[in-house]
Amino acid sequence: MTLPRKDLFDIPDGVIYLDGNSLGPLPKGVSEAVQEAVVAQWGGELIKGWNTCNWMEQPARVGNKVARLIGAPDGSVVMGDTLSIKVFQALAAGLALRPERRVILSDTGNFPSDLYMAEGLIALKAHGHSLKTVAPEAVIDTINDTVAVVMLTEVDYRTGRKHDMDDITERAHQAGAVMIWDLAHSAGAVDVQIAASNCEFAVGCTYKYLNGGPGAPAFIYVRPDLAASAQPALAGWLGHKAPFAFDQTYTPAPNIERMRVGTPPVLQLAALEEALKVWDTTTMAQIREASVALCDLFITQVEARCPELTLISPRDGSVRGSQVSFSFEHGYAAMQALIAQGVIGDFRAPNVMRFGFTPLYIDKEDVVGAVDVLENILNNRLWDADVFKRTHLVT
Amino acid sequence: MTLPRKDLFDIPDGVIYLDGNSLGPLPKGVSEAVQEAVVAQWGGELIKGWNTCNWMEQPARVGNKVARLIGAPDGSVVMGDTLSIKVFQALAAGLALRPERRVILSDTGNFPSDLYMAEGLIALKAHGHSLKTVAPEAVIDTINDTVAVVMLTEVDYRTGRKHDMDDITERAHQAGAVMIWDLAHSAGAVDVQIAASNCEFAVGCTYKYLNGGPGAPAFIYVRPDLAASAQPALAGWLGHKAPFAFDQTYTPAPNIERMRVGTPPVLQLAALEEALKVWDTTTMAQIREASVALCDLFITQVEARCPELTLISPRDGSVRGSQVSFSFEHGYAAMQALIAQGVIGDFRAPNVMRFGFTPLYIDKEDVVGAVDVLENILNNRLWDADVFKRTHLVT
Repeated sequence: MTLPRKDLFDIPDGVIYLDGNSLGPLPKGVSEAVQEAVVAQWGGELIKGWNTCNWMEQPARVGNKVARLIGAPDGSVVMGDTLSIKVFQALAAGLALRPERRVILSDTGNFPSDLYMAEGLIALKAHGHSLKTVAPEAVIDTINDTVAVVMLTEVDYRTGRKHDMDDITERAHQAGAVMIWDLAHSAGAVDVQIAASNCEFAVGCTYKYLNGGPGAPAFIYVRPDLAASAQPALAGWLGHKAPFAFDQTYTPAPNIERMRVGTPPVLQLAALEEALKVWDTTTMAQIREASVALCDLFITQVEARCPELTLISPRDGSVRGSQVSFSFEHGYAAMQALIAQGVIGDFRAPNVMRFGFTPLYIDKEDVVGAVDVLENILNNRLWDADVFKRTHLVT
Repeated sequence: MTLPRKDLFDIPDGVIYLDGNSLGPLPKGVSEAVQEAVVAQWGGELIKGWNTCNWMEQPARVGNKVARLIGAPDGSVVMGDTLSIKVFQALAAGLALRPERRVILSDTGNFPSDLYMAEGLIALKAHGHSLKTVAPEAVIDTINDTVAVVMLTEVDYRTGRKHDMDDITERAHQAGAVMIWDLAHSAGAVDVQIAASNCEFAVGCTYKYLNGGPGAPAFIYVRPDLAASAQPALAGWLGHKAPFAFDQTYTPAPNIERMRVGTPPVLQLAALEEALKVWDTTTMAQIREASVALCDLFITQVEARCPELTLISPRDGSVRGSQVSFSFEHGYAAMQALIAQGVIGDFRAPNVMRFGFTPLYIDKEDVVGAVDVLENILNNRLWDADVFKRTHLVT
């Protein structure tokens, strides 16, 4: 299809939305789908909805739709919980595959929650494991035969730097380590081929580039040869092979369903399932090509017109995700001024202005328009609170 | 207020809903609240919703509303995840309080997922812990000084048998054990006074008697003196004392917020928050009194008119939750026949017909009406598939 497809989204007038890397906008049809789930399904079917509306199958059904966007086969992805919980499950299962090793290796560019979940798991196990974090560029040379699990987020949430998934996974496997990829900033943004990477586990969220809405559930991928044996540390009843037998003893499902835990978030899943329809007529390869072009254009424009800002994302699109970040001393105030004028990006401490580009609803005109606003803010020092107030741009 | 308050719910015409113990019906106003969260908040505010719509405060704000229904003070309850995940957190924190002990004690009436989560935790820790399950009536005499944690569901999901929370908690504490109560079938059904019980932890779900909708989030209560120190085994970023500092190291919040894990399910929480408004004008004591009367009436009516059925719930209302269960050889088919005629209860293997009574939307007329239908089904053997088809009651 021809990009962008702004007609598929409800984005407020006058907004250039460059924060889909944090929370994707509302796709058309989602509000009706949620209403249907609330009124017709819950209200009308009551408890029968579990059968008549197939709520129990939602996590695997929606998982198959996510699978197609990350290069995974049907039956290898299931939805549920939050990304942090899925990180925990993948880590626990990964450590169980390498009981003789004690190191979890990650990098300083990983999202903090992934590191926290590893810390929590290590404290809980109390078997002398440790979390080792190195600089992103040092990961590949740090992998050795003491490492049980390498856990990395493919795209750095702050800089957009993208790891080479295939190279690192291959190196991990050479050293006998298990590989876990966090696709939070990848799914829906870059052309992930998770099965081809051969990693054991992958996890991700769906409220960013997959536009599932605030609090949309996470996903977990388990390599098919491990799906019947991976340890489901969070052994909830919906991961049981027969939940409604109400056995006293846990027997995990012989497939990806063992990574389910509790009752699925039916309303959030209804929103997500509808939101995923925007992907029906495009390919991730097409999205990726357009995304790199938009990011390149943004970099060129900002560097030419806003010399106060310093690029901290990779200049080479092949090692960058779908976002561009600049550092600027007054970045926080400048971002507030941008948002006040309808250009929505976000800020990450200490001085990072972050802009996400999603070709589904952002085009070249938006990129140039955003830089027009940014240039004006910088030229007129509208990030300065005093100047800002005098110009009466906001009340 | 005068009960019932059927005006507060959208229940389909012709339905007598006796399964609110599994999934509560749709309260009026919820569909509008969810629509507001989707369209105005997510669609209109986009990423700004985290601030402008106070999404980040939802888990504690809604937690305070649940706290009032279970006799807990403000700041002692937080929402999130599923009940199984909250069981895991409570168990992990409980074991951490008794590092020298190795036994988790529960009963055979506990909901299987609670037992499964304990099994999963024990396997993960691999420190020689064990799960001991005894008959419900044997729990109190089995508690001894080897027990680290006593974990029980107050109201048995199958029979409605209710434990004496105060007695068991006191006995657990005498033996030096930590007490965890699962309030899945209690919150919104019986007059729980969790703080007065002095238990360390409690957990529960909100899609049953609290009418939060399918997949509504769970809650966890931590006794206030432990809230600043309990181990948050699932150490997600939203339990960090400063999530947006993006520290590399986890430092838990000095309060109940440490039991948060990942991004809150904003849409499900919006539904739940609105649903909880039905409790604004009643007290749990009032609900409890009416619930016991409805259950008593149902027992009297069924025993007088349906001798084929055998009561398996306690006859004494003071040791029974808000449900009544009967065993019947043809229970599954009889329940299908009931549902086909608009009397919705549910069935639990092998032979249990389960009926929940919620005085908010069930009155004495409904109880008698439900028994009318049941008696007719039994008298005419409508549970028999062949008879059932011949009568053309369903197509």
